[in-house]
Amino acid sequence: MVDLKTIYQAHERIKGVVVETPFAFAPRLSEETGAEIYLKKENLQVTGAFKIRGAYNKIASLNAQERALGVIAASAGNHAQGVAMAAQMFNTKALIVMPDSTPLTKINGVRYYGAEVILAGSNYDEAYAYASTYGAEHGMVFVHPFTDEAVMAGQGTIAIEMLDQIHDLDAIVIPVGGGGLISGMASAIKALAPNIRVIGVSAVGAPAMRESFDAKKAIDSTAVRTIADGIAVRDTSEITLNHILETVDQIVSVDDEEIANAILFLLERQKLVVEGAGAVGVAAMLHNKLSDLKGKKVGIVLSGGNMDVTLLSIIIEKGLIKSGRKMKLTVTLIDKPGALMQLTEMLQGLNANIVHIAYDRTSTTLAYGDANVMIHLETKGEEHQSQIRALLKEHRYLSSEEH
Amino acid sequence: MVDLKTIYQAHERIKGVVVETPFAFAPRLSEETGAEIYLKKENLQVTGAFKIRGAYNKIASLNAQERALGVIAASAGNHAQGVAMAAQMFNTKALIVMPDSTPLTKINGVRYYGAEVILAGSNYDEAYAYASTYGAEHGMVFVHPFTDEAVMAGQGTIAIEMLDQIHDLDAIVIPVGGGGLISGMASAIKALAPNIRVIGVSAVGAPAMRESFDAKKAIDSTAVRTIADGIAVRDTSEITLNHILETVDQIVSVDDEEIANAILFLLERQKLVVEGAGAVGVAAMLHNKLSDLKGKKVGIVLSGGNMDVTLLSIIIEKGLIKSGRKMKLTVTLIDKPGALMQLTEMLQGLNANIVHIAYDRTSTTLAYGDANVMIHLETKGEEHQSQIRALLKEHRYLSSEEH
Repeated sequence: MVDLKTIYQAHERIKGVVVETPFAFAPRLSEETGAEIYLKKENLQVTGAFKIRGAYNKIASLNAQERALGVIAASAGNHAQGVAMAAQMFNTKALIVMPDSTPLTKINGVRYYGAEVILAGSNYDEAYAYASTYGAEHGMVFVHPFTDEAVMAGQGTIAIEMLDQIHDLDAIVIPVGGGGLISGMASAIKALAPNIRVIGVSAVGAPAMRESFDAKKAIDSTAVRTIADGIAVRDTSEITLNHILETVDQIVSVDDEEIANAILFLLERQKLVVEGAGAVGVAAMLHNKLSDLKGKKVGIVLSGGNMDVTLLSIIIEKGLIKSGRKMKLTVTLIDKPGALMQLTEMLQGLNANIVHIAYDRTSTTLAYGDANVMIHLETKGEEHQSQIRALLKEHRYLSSEEH
Repeated sequence: MVDLKTIYQAHERIKGVVVETPFAFAPRLSEETGAEIYLKKENLQVTGAFKIRGAYNKIASLNAQERALGVIAASAGNHAQGVAMAAQMFNTKALIVMPDSTPLTKINGVRYYGAEVILAGSNYDEAYAYASTYGAEHGMVFVHPFTDEAVMAGQGTIAIEMLDQIHDLDAIVIPVGGGGLISGMASAIKALAPNIRVIGVSAVGAPAMRESFDAKKAIDSTAVRTIADGIAVRDTSEITLNHILETVDQIVSVDDEEIANAILFLLERQKLVVEGAGAVGVAAMLHNKLSDLKGKKVGIVLSGGNMDVTLLSIIIEKGLIKSGRKMKLTVTLIDKPGALMQLTEMLQGLNANIVHIAYDRTSTTLAYGDANVMIHLETKGEEHQSQIRALLKEHRYLSSEEH
């Protein structure tokens, strides 16, 4: 367990620097899941994620000499921004090592806080190796994203706030990647309110900590792949695993499809942008991974909101199709004047809005004299789509659908 | 001016029902505009918008007999949801009249709160006429979206919260459509802190209140058209205009392009979904409509977050192109094996990710033996796009761009 005193010390240190984020009731989510759910909105934290808490506490814990030499970290994500911003506040030099292929937006996100960026290695592990070697050679403190007591204590401050903001919680649901966030939080929770159940949620595509938790020993993954890049950790740390075995009651996992649904739910119902790693708790509730929480008072940590808007746009697009609000049809027509007009008139009669159309008369699957029309429609839900299918059938159109 | 006492009375009534939304510092927006900006996040309000405040206060002010007969309103937007939810809380029947063409998601959004929906009229004015006639005939109280003292007083409670949450504000920026929100808020502000400048922001495509304010008399518009549907009001109400002339210092306006930029800014930097009407204040700051607020402490009301995700996805897409993160190219190639591969290899060498490609050899503008390739690329900003253009030119490709 991370010592409660060090977590309280971190809590004192971050005051006035880190935002006490809202922890608010979520009516729709509660109704849909049958639990009384409150969301801790760390996506509204400065830098858009909780990582500033640990990073700030770490740099605050250094002595003047250490700070003078600067800090170094390896990350292309929220930890990088957290370290950069915290270092800037202490007027300390920060060097962030990122893999070669890191998108410019992420590089700029860190440079914005005055940090220096080194691009090294073709993946995270190589960037990590470079950073720890470089740090050792230049006497710079390496700020590890999770296997560091000061970092974990910083993340633990979220639990202090949550217990202070809402009393009588039955369970707290926390994302799990490397395990720094849940180690810090669970230590605080079990010290202050041991009856609260602590549940971790990991991504199916990054199962190291869940498998290690179940096996009670460190298991590394061979590869990770998930849209929740903030918890896409391949190797298990013995340090966080031990904290987790001591303080966490359960770890469940959710797949990318479930995470994407949760992201869209939070966007539409909560008006919040939450990144994949931040949405796993809501995904677990929405997809019945924790159905024994029905009737319970549950806090869920939305750990961050730093998601590429391109990915967001893809999630919206797929979500519209899944929820019956968009329909991709291919309809076979006789290739003669008026045939397309007949079809579009029919669709208009059902109030289906055409947002994309393409015409193909050369597909080898077509009979001579036929043409295929690919149509994307905005529809009003499953029922509306059934009406469209029925009408196409009634008029003997040959059609197929893309899902 | 709306009486301060009635606003305080509303403030007492809504306690425990309506959320005291966060009013939080916005670091990036402050940096970009040179003002010290705080955002009042009414998009995180129950029902996703401030309208519940006025609707709840109105229904709370009715007597038992009136409540027994039920309430009626005309709206396809946030007011509808506000009235429906408030009525449900008082166990009062609510009838919401919406135009025929209202999307199913909006109808369902109101039915969710137990209200009955009547589809009547081909536009808002016809639905409005239907509702007021129907209400009069059936003895139901008509809840007007803004020309109602109780509704305005309810909206005014936002100002009470803001003045309580942050002191020493120099200015408060408020969206303006029909004028109910700003009438209530400005009345409270001028009664409690008359030195605070009250600024309204309307949409260029719905200028009635701004023009009326400038002319000091009611001017109606002939038509309205803006993505900020929450403030797309055609006719000016004498009632709200008089309040506004008495309490508001200035009204500016922003166009759809500026509003879309603000929506994207809030999505990316604040991790918030804010609808068009809710984003006009931020749009005004970002696009220098209020440059004399530099160095001042400014509160901006984000009035709601109920936006169709389809529109959100279009705003993201256009925003990516405008900010150099997406590029739509048409390149002319010799129509022979290997020509396309040469091009894609070249683009890959510059780390430009191809997300869409289409091939056309039959365009009448093409020389025989040539083909056009339409390519959509993910790019890293303006500089990256310039590199791509230079390389295409260097290799003598003929190309054009879609903006």
